[in-house]
Amino acid sequence: MTSGFVSIVGAGPGDPDYLTIRGADRLRDAQLVLYDALVDARVLALAPHARHICVGKRAGGEQTPQPVIEAMLIAGAKLGLRVVRLKGGDPFVFGRGGEEAIALGAAGVPFEAIPGISAAVAAPELAGIPLTHRGLSAGFIVLTAANPEVCDAVMAALAPGSLTLVFLMSLLARDRIAARLLTRGWSPQTPAAIVLGAGSPRMWTWKGELRHLGAVVVPAARQELAGTLVVGAVAGLDIPYTTYPRPEEALLV
Amino acid sequence: MTSGFVSIVGAGPGDPDYLTIRGADRLRDAQLVLYDALVDARVLALAPHARHICVGKRAGGEQTPQPVIEAMLIAGAKLGLRVVRLKGGDPFVFGRGGEEAIALGAAGVPFEAIPGISAAVAAPELAGIPLTHRGLSAGFIVLTAANPEVCDAVMAALAPGSLTLVFLMSLLARDRIAARLLTRGWSPQTPAAIVLGAGSPRMWTWKGELRHLGAVVVPAARQELAGTLVVGAVAGLDIPYTTYPRPEEALLV
Repeated sequence: MTSGFVSIVGAGPGDPDYLTIRGADRLRDAQLVLYDALVDARVLALAPHARHICVGKRAGGEQTPQPVIEAMLIAGAKLGLRVVRLKGGDPFVFGRGGEEAIALGAAGVPFEAIPGISAAVAAPELAGIPLTHRGLSAGFIVLTAANPEVCDAVMAALAPGSLTLVFLMSLLARDRIAARLLTRGWSPQTPAAIVLGAGSPRMWTWKGELRHLGAVVVPAARQELAGTLVVGAVAGLDIPYTTYPRPEEALLV
Repeated sequence: MTSGFVSIVGAGPGDPDYLTIRGADRLRDAQLVLYDALVDARVLALAPHARHICVGKRAGGEQTPQPVIEAMLIAGAKLGLRVVRLKGGDPFVFGRGGEEAIALGAAGVPFEAIPGISAAVAAPELAGIPLTHRGLSAGFIVLTAANPEVCDAVMAALAPGSLTLVFLMSLLARDRIAARLLTRGWSPQTPAAIVLGAGSPRMWTWKGELRHLGAVVVPAARQELAGTLVVGAVAGLDIPYTTYPRPEEALLV
């Protein structure tokens, strides 16, 4: 028996205000936090009593090997610590949360998973794009260019324009994705968007048409931000809330 | 100009612990809350100073017409109130949040959207099913049986087993969905799951094979709960965390 415990926590898209209440509770009580590189520093600051260890990778940079991360989680729990494994977005959406959960289970370490708001939902939403909208889209698909075979097969199978497409961690593949969709019969005028750093102060958004998606120039300083692509009619909706006063300002009126 | 403000807030899957910090802040300050029927009473309790009005529908029951909801939001804001429009899950995932946002914008009412954790992510996760998992699934599709044409077209187009399928608000269509997938060549042994009331104390889960999905008997008392279906290899993973002690117990050891 161990008195340690691991909470696999989704950090959400960036701003700690988008963290769940339970996630914040676990961070406050944590003694050890193993976090991914893209997690916002303000979220980490919610765990003031914990030792913080970065185990994630930035694009092209070094990464702690997955078995080492799992060994660190297990060791922390066996030492009796309250451990938080903090992942950007949701831990089970391209986050390898499942692999870590299985490793913890096999080692007899008690743990829980606390969902987070995935960029698949938050990035479009914070850019004013609903994933579904009556008359425009009755569903959505979430893919990543990190797995090009699956990506290509799904794009080849779907009728053009039939669903909203969301690509996570796919900024650098925008040219290839756009070309494939156009080849497959998607209209060049299909609305498309790029959302970088959703939920962070450095959020950057481009909206346009699919035919221009591949050639969009992203400012160099923003290319390291987590990138989400959205393709589909909903990306052409002009939901105006991002142009309104920030809620804090509005509440001060 | 109005000093009122509308926050379109995703309530998450049920338990208020899965609400975002920002969503909880807005509820605490709210003067008027318009909520959907499936929102957990404990989430509503986070808005003690507000008038609460239910505008959602239960399966088969009455519903406030959409234009009336929009008129109520606008009227509340024009009266100078801090209004929260509280929706289960995420407001832009089959939640008509986009329609309400557009109506608010057209009326000149300042507003914001605060994402919530969609059942599309939370229901599988809280049932121990990762939406993606290396070697099993490199993406997922979210659909609803409320739009059978799109549902059928996507199921017909996709190569069997190529992605995780998630169906929201589709409990009563489980027979039809399973039959279509089997007709389209999905293996009868494909893992499948039903998750009802995810994140609530009454959560109910079934896991089995696609060939049995259509005939699953759901206890009568659970049929009113929000229902999510999951089909795909990930539903066969045996992530053990749900069988571990609740975190509160573990932390007391």
